[in-house]
This record gives sequence, structure tokens and C-alpha cells, in this order.
Amino acid sequence: MDLARTLERGSFDSLFLADVVGMYDVYGGSADAALRSAAQVPILDPMMLIPAMATVTERLGFAVTAAVTYEQPYALARRFSTLDHLTKGRVGFNVVTSYLESAARNLGLKTQLDHDQRYDLADEFLDVVYRLWESSWEDDALLVDRTHGIYADPEKVHDIAFVGEYFSVPGKHLVNPSPQRTPVIFQAGASARGGQFAARHGEGVFINGMRKDIAGKLVAGLRGEAERQGRPGGSLKIMQQMTVIVADSDAAAERKYREALDYALDEGSLALWGGFTGLDMSQFTPDQVLKNVETNAIRSVLNLLTTADPDKQWTTQDIAEFMRVGGLGPVIVGSPQSVADEIESWVESADIDGINLFHAVSPETYEEFVDLVVPELQRRGRARVGYEGETLREHYFGAGMTQVPDHHPAAGVRIR
Amino acid sequence: MDLARTLERGSFDSLFLADVVGMYDVYGGSADAALRSAAQVPILDPMMLIPAMATVTERLGFAVTAAVTYEQPYALARRFSTLDHLTKGRVGFNVVTSYLESAARNLGLKTQLDHDQRYDLADEFLDVVYRLWESSWEDDALLVDRTHGIYADPEKVHDIAFVGEYFSVPGKHLVNPSPQRTPVIFQAGASARGGQFAARHGEGVFINGMRKDIAGKLVAGLRGEAERQGRPGGSLKIMQQMTVIVADSDAAAERKYREALDYALDEGSLALWGGFTGLDMSQFTPDQVLKNVETNAIRSVLNLLTTADPDKQWTTQDIAEFMRVGGLGPVIVGSPQSVADEIESWVESADIDGINLFHAVSPETYEEFVDLVVPELQRRGRARVGYEGETLREHYFGAGMTQVPDHHPAAGVRIR
Repeated sequence: MDLARTLERGSFDSLFLADVVGMYDVYGGSADAALRSAAQVPILDPMMLIPAMATVTERLGFAVTAAVTYEQPYALARRFSTLDHLTKGRVGFNVVTSYLESAARNLGLKTQLDHDQRYDLADEFLDVVYRLWESSWEDDALLVDRTHGIYADPEKVHDIAFVGEYFSVPGKHLVNPSPQRTPVIFQAGASARGGQFAARHGEGVFINGMRKDIAGKLVAGLRGEAERQGRPGGSLKIMQQMTVIVADSDAAAERKYREALDYALDEGSLALWGGFTGLDMSQFTPDQVLKNVETNAIRSVLNLLTTADPDKQWTTQDIAEFMRVGGLGPVIVGSPQSVADEIESWVESADIDGINLFHAVSPETYEEFVDLVVPELQRRGRARVGYEGETLREHYFGAGMTQVPDHHPAAGVRIR
Repeated sequence: MDLARTLERGSFDSLFLADVVGMYDVYGGSADAALRSAAQVPILDPMMLIPAMATVTERLGFAVTAAVTYEQPYALARRFSTLDHLTKGRVGFNVVTSYLESAARNLGLKTQLDHDQRYDLADEFLDVVYRLWESSWEDDALLVDRTHGIYADPEKVHDIAFVGEYFSVPGKHLVNPSPQRTPVIFQAGASARGGQFAARHGEGVFINGMRKDIAGKLVAGLRGEAERQGRPGGSLKIMQQMTVIVADSDAAAERKYREALDYALDEGSLALWGGFTGLDMSQFTPDQVLKNVETNAIRSVLNLLTTADPDKQWTTQDIAEFMRVGGLGPVIVGSPQSVADEIESWVESADIDGINLFHAVSPETYEEFVDLVVPELQRRGRARVGYEGETLREHYFGAGMTQVPDHHPAAGVRIR
């Protein structure tokens, strides 16, 4: 609740809650490293945090991850409508297809669906929830007519009659329309199929390029793909992952960065890395040069790491140290002016719309960013001064833009 | 949030949130009547309300319904652990097996499981979540050792390795132990199989006898069945459904009751009745005497109604009027003294532990009960004055009783 207050003080669009419904158990073949280093475990159900945070804020949005692979669309649609009512339209839905084998096994599947099949299921899942949100209850279905004792007009509440390959949902949505109806859809697909999916459904899109030129290519790819699918390239608000360490001077920020690096646990880095890449680094000695190991999995991660430093002879120890602060994304360290310069440079050269601010230390990273960087960005006209709209979608697309725009697939199923 | 504050002011054990993941669509073969009369539709996800209510209360418990028929135990266990952490041990889980055909159809099943099979599945479901709550994390697994950089001790976090008929959950619980570990288990099974289930798992049990003698038989049956299963009869806290309409005098309360009856919608009564009994009353004329209609379904509901009034020639119109206030349960109307007398009489003759207070009008029914009846019950030593414990389980079983007792099946899977 304090963190939510801090972000609202800084006029952030939203607070984003990630989720994994499983443990990182690739490194060393067990979850031991993740448990010792608290690498995303224990992990509470993030949706439950939003109603509490909403009670102490009025404008801040809340985006939350839910994996469509293990949910029923009828129930999840109700959960998001509930959150959108409780927050008065401040909720976003980060659609993930779940990448953890351990999640699949604990949630009733023998193993994961294959990668492309997960996206096909996700497409159908969204088709169902869009219909529940957009086409079940008409705008004027809720009469609340005390004189005649009529609450809702059944003529204006429709069955969605959905029968698909993965889901069958014949009935009506259980909740009358919430302020945004469809929550703001977030996506972070990095693969080719994931990029198509993000360009089709995403309103907020999370990317992670280790350098500006790589981020710029991701952004151009996403906007181009959106246009091929009939959506303006600018209808995707693209946020680059970024860890910011700021202090009064560049030197003070650098000292703070070194201190943060000292506190990080290499085992935790490698547990996360195992979860992200599927590669168990415990099979290599810490100083073994990876490019001398000839496997497809190694080549794939070296492609990734080379973008961070093309000349380095990457070893397991290098990876652990590299991930200590900021994970696999860029880390910006400096005075408020230096940080603002660098953020502006990213915005200009990579065509990003904003950043997804990662923390080195929570809540300090956010407090310092709000106190030191936000005022500097506001002076430069790069950050809003107070909110214009009331709902999360308005924060991204302007006052009055509470509903999905006509070119979004959720609008395609509207009955209005 | 205001209602939660009111109940805490009255030192209530808990606020109970019912749920149905479907619409009442038996009456007239559609959900029209339910929608017109707002008969449990629209219905928000009740779990989402608890974190907000918890922010404005410190002791009040929150019991919430979840249907195990359509959930994954691994995910639901995490949701309850999250709520138990957020509320500092104030959460209860009302286990239902869902009785609506419309819920089943929208949640991926062709039709409902049969009645007894639903309880077999529920037994296995609880076995899984008990293991996640009680046997995955040892009490001292969470070290938070800053000196050595160790958060949790993996040696003390165990796989539950569950393989059953309905569920397979090999892994560890995602959340470290919450104050109560297992939330207080509530149950309301009315059938024979349901009664067995309630006597096995229930810590709070909701009953509804229309008269004291019937309630008394239900209570004796439940306590006897609990004892046959190795639990003390008194380890079930049994709450009788009861609507209370109170005012300064008996006459004023009677006037308030008549006013409430005037506002009720018969169509709404019959929509609820259709959902509860599966019987569509729209097939009969309003004044048709039911006992002249020879079907098994009719005989079954007449058995129920006869307990309310054995001499009445029940018609559809009578049922609608009977259910206008208080549904199928008793309605107590009178001054604070009269109401307290009647509640005491129920406690004495039916051996109930408390009441599940239904409202005629919300929040007024609760405000008036807290302002007028609670002080009278406190004077008589029938209601607590302030809370002794901090968790919901302590409200029911005394200060210090935060964990499930040894005779509860959840304790049977403990590793401690």
C-alpha cells in the first residue's frame, strides 16, 4: 500500500505485478537455489494485493499477470471485472502462457502444451473473455428501476454461445460492465509467435532490449506487425525494462550501484536464469568459457549475451554477476540529470513509449525515482504532472479513452 | 468496508461471503427472473473483497465460498494462503461442491458430476490443499538469515508428491506458512453425504432448520457423525441461518417487517427457489395446490415446506410470499429483548453455537443488530465483549487456538 502511494505520487501509469505459478527448479535440478535466495518464491497470488492497494490510491493503475494456460475464461473474466469495478477502471491484464514446466505439472497437466499451441489456446481464451466483457451486457442493461422493481433488463443481457477448440462457454457474463469493460491488455511475447500475439492483443507491451539498437528493432517489429494486423503502430504503448539507480551525483549513484551488487546472490541469479532460459548452469564449472561448449541451448543464450557484451568470453560466473542487478535488462546509474538524459536517449533512438522500472531494492528504487528522476522528467516535458483521466486506459491513450479502441480485437466482438 | 467495520464493532466472528459461479436459470427456463430481480446476479468474485475489507479492520474474520469442482487445488491453496497472510490469520474457506448446472456448463464440463462423486472429488481436493498448507513448509523453514544470505532452508520445504484419482500435485506449496496455515473450514452440506463431509472437515458448519426441533436434530446428527469420525462433537461450531428484524418495540419491529415484505419481488423468490430446489414453478398456476401434483420433486419440496407450516395448502404464490424475507430460514421479529429471548431459546433447545445472520436490508439489518441486539446479548453473557484472540480460528475455539486441532483431518497430514 505504501508502494502504491509512492507511485501515485509520481503519477506513474501503473504498478505491475508479475507472477509465476511454480518454482524455478532448473538450476541444479531442484528449487533449492531459488528457495535459498528467495528467487520469486515464496510468491503470493498477486491479484489479491490490488483491492488493498486500491483503497489508498485514486488514479494509479494496476497491471497483473495471469496465465491463461491453467484458468477457466468464465472465472477469470469475472475476477478481472470485479477488480475493474473495485478500482473504478484501473486494472490491466498481462496475458502470459506460462513457461514453467513445474507449473504445468502441479496444475493438472502431464507436461506443458507446446509453445505455439499455448498461443493458439491464448488467442481462443482472449476471444472468450472479450465476448464476456464486450458482448454479453449492453450498456443500458442495468436499469436499477426502483419504481417498477427491475434491476437488469434480461433482453439486454446475452449468452455468448461460445464453442471453440479449447473452451466452451454458452452463458452470460456474471458481472455488469465495469468502467473499462476489457481491462488494459498487456503482453511481453519475445518469440515470433509471441510477437504476433502481442501485436494483435497488446495495448501495453513490455520489451527488453539490452541495447537501444536492439530495443529499436523490437519496437519497429511490433509496430509493423500491428499495422499488418490493422492496428496503428502507435496503438501499442511499448515499455522497455530498465533498472535505475539514482543519487544526487553520478559518483554517489555509482557507489550505490556497487553496494547493491555486493548484496546480490549469484545462486539466485542462476536460479532465475535457469527459469528464463531452461539452461542448468550447475553442469558447468564457474569459469568454463561457454562458447567452447557446443550445444544448441548454449548457442541460443550466447546470442542473447553477446548483445550485452560481444567481446566477452562468457562464463557461468559472468552470467551470475551480470544478472546481479537488473536481471537481463539495462541498468542506468547516475544523477537525476544523467538518468533523464539516458531515458530520453532511449525514447528517441528506440521509439519506446516508456519504461518498466525494475528495482535494485524495493521500495527505495521507486522512492528515489519518484523524488529525483520524475521531477527532472517533468521539467523536460517527458513525464505527466498529475493525471488527466481516471482509468488506466486513459493514462495510456488520453482522457476519454476508457474503452478499447475500434481497431482492437476486443472491439470486434461488440454488440453495440 | 463500512459493513466490515460495523460487524467488527459488534465483535462478530466473521463476515461470510457466499458465491455462485452461475445464474439461477431454472425458473421459466432462463435467467430472466434472476436478472430482473437481482437474485444473486450480478455477482462479483467474493475473494477480491476481502483484502479491501481487511485494511479497515483488525480482528473480524472473513469466510468465503469457493467451489472445489472447478478449481485447481494448487492455485486455490495459494489464494487462501495469500488471504491468510494479508489478513494476519482471519480467513475461512466455505467448501462447496457447486449445485448449478449453468456453472458446470460454463466452466468446461458437459454437465455436472453426480452428487456423491462431487463429494469424493471434494474430499480429495481437501486432502491436497491440507498437504500444501500443513506438510510442505516446516515451521522453521523460513530463515530470513541476512548474514549468510539465506531466505528459506530448502531442506525444510517439501514436495507433497500427491497422486490421486482427480488431482496430481507433485510439488511444494508456493507460499510460506500463513498464521493459520489451513484457513478455518466451513461447510453447509444438507444431504447425507454432505453431512458426512461437514462432520469430517467442518469447523464452522452452517445449518438451516425452519424450526428449533428440526435444527436440533440436524445438530445432533452432525455432532454424532463427527464423533463417529473421531472428532469431539463440540469441535463443530454450528450456526443456524436466521434473519433478524429488530426495533425499539415489538410493534415497531413488526411494522418494519411488513414494510420489508412489501418491497420483495415474488419473481425473485421463485428464481432463487428454482436454483435451490431445481423445481421450475412457472409450470404451475400461482394458486394451484401443490400436493395435488404427484411428482417426486414436488413431494420432496413439500416435505421441506411442511416443516414451516404443516397445515398449509402450499401453492406457488405461497412459496413466493414465504421466501420474501429470510428465504427458507426462520425470521425473528421483535424488540431487542424479544429477539435475544428467541435466540437464547434456539441456542438452548437446538444446541446451536451461533447464528448466521441473514439480512432483510443491507447494511441496515446488521447495523441495527449491532446497535440493539448485541448489547442485550452481551448483558446476558451470550455474546463476547471485544475479541480475545487475533485469528479467526481463535474467535471460534479460544485464544491460542490458531492452528487446526489434532483431531481435524488437516492435522493428520502434518509433518511436524
